[in-house]
Amino acid sequence: MSAAADSINIDRILAGEPRAVARAISKVEDGVGDAFELMKAVFPHTGKGLVVGITGSPGAGKSSLVDRLAGLYRQRGERVGIVCVDPSSPFTGGAILGDRIRMQALGLDPGVFIRSMATRGNLGGLARATVDAVAILDAAGYEKIIVETVGVGQDEVEIVKTADVSVVVLVPGMGDDIQAIKAGIMEIGDVFVINKADREGVLRTEKELESLLSLAHRPDMWNPPIVKTVATENKGLAELASAIESYGEFQKESKSGGVRRAAVARWRLLELLRERLLERALEGEGADEQLDQLALEVADKRRDPYSAVEEFIAAGTLGEPRVG
Amino acid sequence: MSAAADSINIDRILAGEPRAVARAISKVEDGVGDAFELMKAVFPHTGKGLVVGITGSPGAGKSSLVDRLAGLYRQRGERVGIVCVDPSSPFTGGAILGDRIRMQALGLDPGVFIRSMATRGNLGGLARATVDAVAILDAAGYEKIIVETVGVGQDEVEIVKTADVSVVVLVPGMGDDIQAIKAGIMEIGDVFVINKADREGVLRTEKELESLLSLAHRPDMWNPPIVKTVATENKGLAELASAIESYGEFQKESKSGGVRRAAVARWRLLELLRERLLERALEGEGADEQLDQLALEVADKRRDPYSAVEEFIAAGTLGEPRVG
Repeated sequence: MSAAADSINIDRILAGEPRAVARAISKVEDGVGDAFELMKAVFPHTGKGLVVGITGSPGAGKSSLVDRLAGLYRQRGERVGIVCVDPSSPFTGGAILGDRIRMQALGLDPGVFIRSMATRGNLGGLARATVDAVAILDAAGYEKIIVETVGVGQDEVEIVKTADVSVVVLVPGMGDDIQAIKAGIMEIGDVFVINKADREGVLRTEKELESLLSLAHRPDMWNPPIVKTVATENKGLAELASAIESYGEFQKESKSGGVRRAAVARWRLLELLRERLLERALEGEGADEQLDQLALEVADKRRDPYSAVEEFIAAGTLGEPRVG
Repeated sequence: MSAAADSINIDRILAGEPRAVARAISKVEDGVGDAFELMKAVFPHTGKGLVVGITGSPGAGKSSLVDRLAGLYRQRGERVGIVCVDPSSPFTGGAILGDRIRMQALGLDPGVFIRSMATRGNLGGLARATVDAVAILDAAGYEKIIVETVGVGQDEVEIVKTADVSVVVLVPGMGDDIQAIKAGIMEIGDVFVINKADREGVLRTEKELESLLSLAHRPDMWNPPIVKTVATENKGLAELASAIESYGEFQKESKSGGVRRAAVARWRLLELLRERLLERALEGEGADEQLDQLALEVADKRRDPYSAVEEFIAAGTLGEPRVG
């Protein structure tokens, strides 16, 4: 183990100490370069927990659902990690909801670890950092790790796809946009939830969902169950937990599980590669200043962005591959 | 002008021929390498149209609002380009809503150009391609270019921020998640819309919004107006158009307009750089196969992703900067 990983104290992470876990997650948020040694040390200890991704339209009651599901896992004596991906501004960064609000709902239960991940500004890497945070929680012995997205966008869909089990939450009777969202996230759902199922229109939503699902072709031949819940009244949570468990088992044994893991690994390598290449390009002497200067020229229309990037790369420090 | 740009026929783009515009947008969707010569030729002709970004929660009626706003601009004799960013799956790609549905609403008006942009799979570049598509429409003489996002996520927020005027659409009385979304997109709104303003709870939403806005600090001292609309009944559209116009004028004259343009240009350079670096890394001999092999090893936990990327970069073809 290297000195860098040691400074984070891998043993304390593996022992599940919340403070060590929190520090490790901050480290992976700082950038791929900083995370390198840490994640190398963490990786061999992953693969024990079940990672549950939860996405769906805003207003579907995802956060209540996550809280109640976590509560149920706690009753069963399992430790639960929750990673919440917030759609914050690309310019200021910073998690929005804050962990405080969530903490109130789940109390100060030491068996629950909650963390909001926010964008790292222009440098990207939110998806990579989230997946790393999940790996840290996994290594730290959390049996269930729930990844919840507040937004519904491209990055969020990609993040949820990396989970062992992806849950899509819908709600009865919403507008046309929802139909679009539904179509977009249809193929990522291993389990579907119709939350707020005491509302009008639940049957119609269920029928629509069934017909959409019947059109979808899943290479693994899994037939995604539809679970109806009223999270705020704790209704349907046990059914949801068991549907999640079923797909987790199914995937572990099926051939398609391996295919999925390989696809996720490839995606993960691409994310890491993208971020690392950008870091390398920007850490060269004077790179930042050059970029600022080129940006000004582009803003004034004295130069087009494509030529500017061409020049930046040509002038660049990209010639010398660097390690670590 | 180079042969590559010529093959796209820049003159036909500048003349606003829809087929040439459509082909050019397909080109920028294909990747930054392909777009290079084209965008260099297009860029000097941009900066005339007003780019309006529209985002907001699903279910807020964004698409009706965009359709009606486009209709209003058409009545005024302006040509309108609409670029719609869809939250489709990262694995299959492909725009979801399809242009067909929108085309029905706006008829086959030759003064309206509609295009859905979808993710390019694992390679990213949606934000860059969208901004390029807007530039093409701008060069093609569309006076108003509306960028609409279906999803609400990190990428979508970034895309809307590149517009001259960013419009955030809310709707009265939705759940807690909406509060989070609101907070996340609060700072990007230059104009706020409360759509479906004939619904209950509109006053409460307006008050909440006002108090959130009073907390926000805008460096440009602009006070974002709140416009109430019922898009399906064409109510409030003229007010919205005039609020958009006001901010467009304000920004053109204010110092902060220049700051914003420089920030957008810098973001754009980073997006281009990120994508170009990845393309370069993957176009090397055997790079794709090596990545597949490493992904398998990572999936089987024989290797951690960080070391894998380290090896990929070290083995890489990154030593030789390539142009175009």
